[in-house]
Amino acid sequence: MTDRVPVPVVICVGSDSDMTVMDACAVTLLALDVPYEVLVLSAHRTPHRMFEFARDAEARGHKVLIAAAGGAAHLPGMLAALTILPVIGVPIANTAMSGLDALLSIVQMPKGVPVATVAVGQGTNAALLAAQILALGDDALAARLHARREATARDVEAASDRVHDEHAGRVAGLGRKGPG
Amino acid sequence: MTDRVPVPVVICVGSDSDMTVMDACAVTLLALDVPYEVLVLSAHRTPHRMFEFARDAEARGHKVLIAAAGGAAHLPGMLAALTILPVIGVPIANTAMSGLDALLSIVQMPKGVPVATVAVGQGTNAALLAAQILALGDDALAARLHARREATARDVEAASDRVHDEHAGRVAGLGRKGPG
Amino acid sequence: MTDRVPVPVVICVGSDSDMTVMDACAVTLLALDVPYEVLVLSAHRTPHRMFEFARDAEARGHKVLIAAAGGAAHLPGMLAALTILPVIGVPIANTAMSGLDALLSIVQMPKGVPVATVAVGQGTNAALLAAQILALGDDALAARLHARREATARDVEAASDRVHDEHAGRVAGLGRKGPG
Amino acid sequence: MTDRVPVPVVICVGSDSDMTVMDACAVTLLALDVPYEVLVLSAHRTPHRMFEFARDAEARGHKVLIAAAGGAAHLPGMLAALTILPVIGVPIANTAMSGLDALLSIVQMPKGVPVATVAVGQGTNAALLAAQILALGDDALAARLHARREATARDVEAASDRVHDEHAGRVAGLGRKGPG
Amino acid sequence: MTDRVPVPVVICVGSDSDMTVMDACAVTLLALDVPYEVLVLSAHRTPHRMFEFARDAEARGHKVLIAAAGGAAHLPGMLAALTILPVIGVPIANTAMSGLDALLSIVQMPKGVPVATVAVGQGTNAALLAAQILALGDDALAARLHARREATARDVEAASDRVHDEHAGRVAGLGRKGPG
Amino acid sequence: MTDRVPVPVVICVGSDSDMTVMDACAVTLLALDVPYEVLVLSAHRTPHRMFEFARDAEARGHKVLIAAAGGAAHLPGMLAALTILPVIGVPIANTAMSGLDALLSIVQMPKGVPVATVAVGQGTNAALLAAQILALGDDALAARLHARREATARDVEAASDRVHDEHAGRVAGLGRKGPG
Amino acid sequence: MTDRVPVPVVICVGSDSDMTVMDACAVTLLALDVPYEVLVLSAHRTPHRMFEFARDAEARGHKVLIAAAGGAAHLPGMLAALTILPVIGVPIANTAMSGLDALLSIVQMPKGVPVATVAVGQGTNAALLAAQILALGDDALAARLHARREATARDVEAASDRVHDEHAGRVAGLGRKGPG
Amino acid sequence: MTDRVPVPVVICVGSDSDMTVMDACAVTLLALDVPYEVLVLSAHRTPHRMFEFARDAEARGHKVLIAAAGGAAHLPGMLAALTILPVIGVPIANTAMSGLDALLSIVQMPKGVPVATVAVGQGTNAALLAAQILALGDDALAARLHARREATARDVEAASDRVHDEHAGRVAGLGRKGPG
Repeated sequence: MTDRVPVPVVICVGSDSDMTVMDACAVTLLALDVPYEVLVLSAHRTPHRMFEFARDAEARGHKVLIAAAGGAAHLPGMLAALTILPVIGVPIANTAMSGLDALLSIVQMPKGVPVATVAVGQGTNAALLAAQILALGDDALAARLHARREATARDVEAASDRVHDEHAGRVAGLGRKGPG
Repeated sequence: MTDRVPVPVVICVGSDSDMTVMDACAVTLLALDVPYEVLVLSAHRTPHRMFEFARDAEARGHKVLIAAAGGAAHLPGMLAALTILPVIGVPIANTAMSGLDALLSIVQMPKGVPVATVAVGQGTNAALLAAQILALGDDALAARLHARREATARDVEAASDRVHDEHAGRVAGLGRKGPG
Repeated sequence: MTDRVPVPVVICVGSDSDMTVMDACAVTLLALDVPYEVLVLSAHRTPHRMFEFARDAEARGHKVLIAAAGGAAHLPGMLAALTILPVIGVPIANTAMSGLDALLSIVQMPKGVPVATVAVGQGTNAALLAAQILALGDDALAARLHARREATARDVEAASDRVHDEHAGRVAGLGRKGPG
Repeated sequence: MTDRVPVPVVICVGSDSDMTVMDACAVTLLALDVPYEVLVLSAHRTPHRMFEFARDAEARGHKVLIAAAGGAAHLPGMLAALTILPVIGVPIANTAMSGLDALLSIVQMPKGVPVATVAVGQGTNAALLAAQILALGDDALAARLHARREATARDVEAASDRVHDEHAGRVAGLGRKGPG
Repeated sequence: MTDRVPVPVVICVGSDSDMTVMDACAVTLLALDVPYEVLVLSAHRTPHRMFEFARDAEARGHKVLIAAAGGAAHLPGMLAALTILPVIGVPIANTAMSGLDALLSIVQMPKGVPVATVAVGQGTNAALLAAQILALGDDALAARLHARREATARDVEAASDRVHDEHAGRVAGLGRKGPG
Repeated sequence: MTDRVPVPVVICVGSDSDMTVMDACAVTLLALDVPYEVLVLSAHRTPHRMFEFARDAEARGHKVLIAAAGGAAHLPGMLAALTILPVIGVPIANTAMSGLDALLSIVQMPKGVPVATVAVGQGTNAALLAAQILALGDDALAARLHARREATARDVEAASDRVHDEHAGRVAGLGRKGPG
Repeated sequence: MTDRVPVPVVICVGSDSDMTVMDACAVTLLALDVPYEVLVLSAHRTPHRMFEFARDAEARGHKVLIAAAGGAAHLPGMLAALTILPVIGVPIANTAMSGLDALLSIVQMPKGVPVATVAVGQGTNAALLAAQILALGDDALAARLHARREATARDVEAASDRVHDEHAGRVAGLGRKGPG
Repeated sequence: MTDRVPVPVVICVGSDSDMTVMDACAVTLLALDVPYEVLVLSAHRTPHRMFEFARDAEARGHKVLIAAAGGAAHLPGMLAALTILPVIGVPIANTAMSGLDALLSIVQMPKGVPVATVAVGQGTNAALLAAQILALGDDALAARLHARREATARDVEAASDRVHDEHAGRVAGLGRKGPG
């Protein structure tokens, strides 16, 4: 981990299998032109490595840490305890508890150490939140975020028109003896 | 959205994928001869369009709004905040939380702004509730609702007879040395 | 129950102790000038009376039924099964389950029989929803509902100004050497 | 429903699709030589028929009613409100809520009207509980219940021996330099 | 426990503090003239005594066992495993989990061993269920149960009249310019 | 709202009663020398004002929005839908649901619009998270955050010494014939 | 922490306020003559100190660690990640979530790092579990545990006799015309 | 069960179908060279056998009992009530409740009788916890546990390198005009 170029965002996953969920996070960062790094960093299975990474993250020039974990998900909270960089937590639903265990383990942090928690399995939103934070100091990124939102709105409107017209045809067949 | 004919019911979905659940709503309205319109209208992805739609809904002659959404489902509540038309909310189970998140996000509205919430995924019941409301001013629709209930009751009774007789055959084989 | 004057709204409670929660419902209807009647009508303890009431409600000229109940709350759903009038359900939190039992017992109605469910303990919102339904055929009531919303908005804005100014004073004492 | 022979147990299901779960109930009653009847009897879709059935059940000589329903499951509780015969409730998991809605709707009955609730989907146990109640007045049935328990215990013991020996073989391969 | 007279119902509590909840059970049995016995019988703290009691209960002439317990409530299920007498389980809410732990520990019994579970803390309903079971073989008790139900219905109706009239007075003050 | 000086953080509460919880947020920002503003801004009762505020927040120079709400908490998510500024959501436990409704309504945002959610009622952590985000562009604030963490650690260590010594005295009285 | 005498059990609490719950743990260890030490050791506020303590715990001669924490309770799991000593976790109910958050954060540990979790707030049982583990190598302690269990059983039996006799008096007043 | 050689660990399952989950437990014990035995031992279907086994377990030289069960899981708690050996409980998710019922039935044991509960379905962790307990008196086993942890950490680090490099390639394609 020594001679790598610092990047603003680091995606930390508790297990490499979590990347099936978090690939959407990476894809979103790429689409927004935000460089990132991925580490498999388990609070429970590699605690020493996690400790060193979190302790040094600020000095190495990282800006935002994204941490995804399932079950008794301690990775986001432990990173947050070891750095003052903003830590975004993504609960992963990989137990019988449908992600409720991961959600509560990540969001219910005690006074003093916040984790910015997003929805269960929402890797995309973790990327967007990281970008929104970075955009406070990066006008070009802010512009890309605005453009993305506008494109999304246009997509929804196009879908609305499609669905609307399809049903208009079905309703046209009615006798129109309904109310009014 | 300007030159459309006003219709009594508008089905609003947060995403076009919600129509797989809400098609039953449309089908039920068609069966009851109640004209409706469908819009994809996301509280989060098209907030401005949602705002305008809700603000103008009463003036445009709509009577009842049906809104379906999943996760942190804000669409029904935001529509309800922007109009005094009755808003019927349908929680969609499209996250790991089995619809509990959508249910609580829709039903637990604070004092002042009610949403008439139906069961998770119950598009049919949203349509029936809308029709029951419209039927207060439409005797023909009331008659169709009564007829539908009677037909349903007859179907249940027929099913009961089928199942009853099938099991009567199985029980007939017993030695009848049971109690009594 | 024979010679009473029909009123548009009937508030049905499973037990008279539920009126401590539902008094807000009555008060709201009074404030909106909507006549109502109150009945203690238990699905479990007075099933025959409930049956007769619900069966005759439409013929007696009622328009909307509001039903509040706790625990295994069957009153709203049974009324809804026995009439095509819109039934508004209010879950009451009167067991160890914090109202979750009442909420699910009321909202999770099967296909065919909707209950318009509002938040746990939200008698006020039940009244408002009833009024919003009645206002579809009563312009004066609609106007009163609009006026109420505007008054509420003004109250929130006044509260906002109070809180804003109080904190502005606290912030003014800062060295203002923060970001930016 | 008029000229049927009275039987001690009636299995009531809210929908004929519930019989996929409740077939185990019927099979168990057959195995114990307990005559039963099956009715599809929906609290919401056939309330009048349910009312009549429950009101007359005691007079018709039934002893125990078993009622299965899902979602806002009102059938067991409404039967219990209309008869003093013991009513056994079986929650069915047929919504997004995994049966929690049905369980709470059935078990959380208010003071005065109990439902004897068994586990979600446990049609077999409903049958056994009915049989245990009937056995209080039927020594032969009690003997069959004792025999069934003994057979079950023998089955478990046989399974235990199989599994035990299989693992004994695996453990035998160890160096046995473990603790002790 | 040797020379006591057999009684039809035994109330078993996991701890004597549970009697604050279960006193209503005893009172109800007394009101129905049903003899009972109370034992503090902990599945965890007096397992041997519980074993002996349950094993001998049928021979000693008991008819129905009522068992109340909180937390990981094993008493009802273990009694049920050791006798074919009907066992009624009462979940007690004595932990931070509001009785959900006790409810699931009692009701979710596996195939083969049912517990007739009533609502959290509902000692009264446990007594009534026991009486309903005993009444299958005791017409006088059945008559007392019917009488109790009728008295309860009359009480509800009286309360209804009181509440109805009180609100009729409040509504009378309205201008009656509401809908209709 | 026109001629106020822009400040980096705005605390938005759905109701002024939420400030009893969020005062800790204000106090923490003051302690970190971060200017802030407070607005009562209800998604449901003042939707137009909320809309305007959120739409203009970026242009008015705000950096981070903190939004607290209870029940069907829509304020954080609606703000997030209307701005690309980071929005921090604080669930308030002001209903019978112990904050679970507010938590799910805030955290379970759909793809595209994240809310950085903190623990139920954790106003202090919302302030710290806002400060950590601002500190990415403010070294002095970063230094204050580091200092605060060190002070907190020292407080915990002092508490540890106190508790340790108190128990050491109690243990010293043992015969020390424990496992050895 | 350098020159202290090693003790078999260390009680670690995330905050000194947790000792109000965990005093019962200390008292139980004292009663069983098991030496212990108490540390306030926060995974989030003193992560470095926690790290050092856990890493050295085995070498310093400790045998069992007991860790209590609330909310997103990471202390037990992080200790368990850093040592192979058995770690007993005690969830503390100090948030709006009634301890469910702490329970899931502690018990749902991923493959590889177990925490021996006891009931919410059950400091006494944590002490007993620690003693049961130590008793595997300490026959005197095993004897004390057996004696304690026997004393507890005797207490329950005495309470049973008291309650039994009290109710026998009440039942004696019945006409004994009940069943049988 | 008479002439078998005592082994330190006994895996008890409530049903042989539970071995599909618990095979990982057996495999882990084998990998750590810890002899074990497997018994199918149902609290509900073979209560007498369970009683005898638990009562004699200490005398037969067993050290740790592992018990897995689903639903109203009473096996771990009943074993714990009948022996002072440490009992490790594994909740099995074999009902509609996703293991929440089993978890609460196992972990929420009342004061006096602890069960060392691990995560739902975590047979591997039950084995590791048993080994960690045995390792207190077995230095070779402690060494094997340390070696296993180191191997696991190396595996995670290798996976991290793989994932890191894969994403480094994807990021390298960016224009690197992002922040910083």
